[in-house]
Amino acid sequence: MNPGLLFLTECIGVVAFALSGAAKAIDKDLDLFGIIVLGVTTASGGGVVRDLLLGVTPPAMFQNPVYAELALFTSLSMFLLVRYGFGSPYARRRLDRVIELCDAVGLGIFAVTGAHAAIAAGYGDNGFLAVFVGTLTGVGGGMLRDIMAREIPFVLTKNIYALAALAGAYLYYHLQAAGVSAAMTAGATLTFVIRLLAERFGWQLPRAHPKEPIPKKEEIL
Amino acid sequence: MNPGLLFLTECIGVVAFALSGAAKAIDKDLDLFGIIVLGVTTASGGGVVRDLLLGVTPPAMFQNPVYAELALFTSLSMFLLVRYGFGSPYARRRLDRVIELCDAVGLGIFAVTGAHAAIAAGYGDNGFLAVFVGTLTGVGGGMLRDIMAREIPFVLTKNIYALAALAGAYLYYHLQAAGVSAAMTAGATLTFVIRLLAERFGWQLPRAHPKEPIPKKEEIL
Amino acid sequence: MNPGLLFLTECIGVVAFALSGAAKAIDKDLDLFGIIVLGVTTASGGGVVRDLLLGVTPPAMFQNPVYAELALFTSLSMFLLVRYGFGSPYARRRLDRVIELCDAVGLGIFAVTGAHAAIAAGYGDNGFLAVFVGTLTGVGGGMLRDIMAREIPFVLTKNIYALAALAGAYLYYHLQAAGVSAAMTAGATLTFVIRLLAERFGWQLPRAHPKEPIPKKEEIL
Repeated sequence: MNPGLLFLTECIGVVAFALSGAAKAIDKDLDLFGIIVLGVTTASGGGVVRDLLLGVTPPAMFQNPVYAELALFTSLSMFLLVRYGFGSPYARRRLDRVIELCDAVGLGIFAVTGAHAAIAAGYGDNGFLAVFVGTLTGVGGGMLRDIMAREIPFVLTKNIYALAALAGAYLYYHLQAAGVSAAMTAGATLTFVIRLLAERFGWQLPRAHPKEPIPKKEEIL
Repeated sequence: MNPGLLFLTECIGVVAFALSGAAKAIDKDLDLFGIIVLGVTTASGGGVVRDLLLGVTPPAMFQNPVYAELALFTSLSMFLLVRYGFGSPYARRRLDRVIELCDAVGLGIFAVTGAHAAIAAGYGDNGFLAVFVGTLTGVGGGMLRDIMAREIPFVLTKNIYALAALAGAYLYYHLQAAGVSAAMTAGATLTFVIRLLAERFGWQLPRAHPKEPIPKKEEIL
Repeated sequence: MNPGLLFLTECIGVVAFALSGAAKAIDKDLDLFGIIVLGVTTASGGGVVRDLLLGVTPPAMFQNPVYAELALFTSLSMFLLVRYGFGSPYARRRLDRVIELCDAVGLGIFAVTGAHAAIAAGYGDNGFLAVFVGTLTGVGGGMLRDIMAREIPFVLTKNIYALAALAGAYLYYHLQAAGVSAAMTAGATLTFVIRLLAERFGWQLPRAHPKEPIPKKEEIL
């Protein structure tokens, strides 16, 4: 993939994830600093976890602050938009759709760039590591966001979210191992398409559906 | 300890922790993927935290995927068992008792193998590090599980849980330093026995028991 | 800064943060071990996160256990104080004020010593890293405390908390780059003063104030 194009798509992912973090913080009525912290955490968190697992210290976000700065300005813009004039329900619905679209783009981008980072760090022969780390890079920021906002992480409850990231990272890994030049594009696109289709058609993975609640241990022992 | 036997007991710990994570996910009505994620996180989380603290990157779970695969299949089996036919309250009570037994085994195994990993990484002369890391390996997976499931970590509220792991890691460290060949068995057994006795007899550590709630800071300043 | 004086002030920060963690645990009715775990986590958590980001393994808290021991004895003392005789509302109010004062001191100390650790690890020319890591060292322990106690992290909701740490780390970084010998004292004092003034005068950062709740995605798609 063209480096300039890669940088551009990474920036789209950062913006989308920062928007989703800032939107969550506004939803929780946090102040401006909380909005920025949650936006930057969501946009950077997956990459930091990835770099810690790969032993890349300090993590990439500190070696090139442009991503954190972009996340900061995105969060600030979201704050200003909601506070001054973008607060009508109609405007918010449009914004929500844009965020959802960007989020799917970001999920795909980060899943393949995460797997790429594992290969670049010299673990190209360990497909398990590359795919796992790619998936984690895609979903990690959103998990930190939800834990900090005191919610069950979205990735555990949202239909076909982590699975979409896993599929994209998996496809990317095997295509690049086969020398396909469009491996990144293909992997990111797969994640994006699965995610959008799952949302559109309400795809759900099965639940265990216990008919009554599991009895507490205290009642049995 | 015999390497084959060590591997077998580690597998028991992985299975037990994966079961407890999957059971928690089913309790929270997560879907199949959420069940697998929580099962794998519970089984692997302590080891990943341990390896990050010791500077072992990528963590051991990525160097030999057999543990993650075992946790995955365990979580999947738990899902199938609860969904198809193992859902009667009587069956669940038996399952809960098995999980509790396995959990105590796993806690002991991971506490001593965690301390062992610290020694193997070259920190054998730092007993504080070895015992602390061993305790954390034992309790870390369960902490991540509870934080992701939006509960106060079990380790903070359950009677004599982390203390049992600490005792086992401590005994193991001092026995192996004295050259006792059965150090691992002794440490893991101590943790196991303390944990079961605490559960059986309802051992509790004291609480601070404030008679009235602590006044909010806002009311005082 | 004089090393002995630095060590003394670090100890004040450890004691203050351990007190705040133990107080939170008592508020949640955890047992003695939970109180100690939360106290030690709050006092050590920021430094561990800092060292993981900087690639310093094992983290400093394991290389010199005096800080963890100090946090342990502080948490134990807090437990004894509340359980035996220090439980009157009047006594608790005085204690709360002392904790708040110490917490502001600790925040300042850890913000500048965190930035100092980044410089000492060889990243002195990366101001973004040093200031970010300093801020994180200041607020990290409290964030872990609140996540483990199942609350939205204090740092996201408390008025001017992380911003005070950021300001102190920023001032310290630029003063030490200019060769000012009192850089640490100045940075820590700035954080301390901002934090106390914010509390005294109720300074608040703006919120986005949506007039109605943001509509759920399910209602729109």
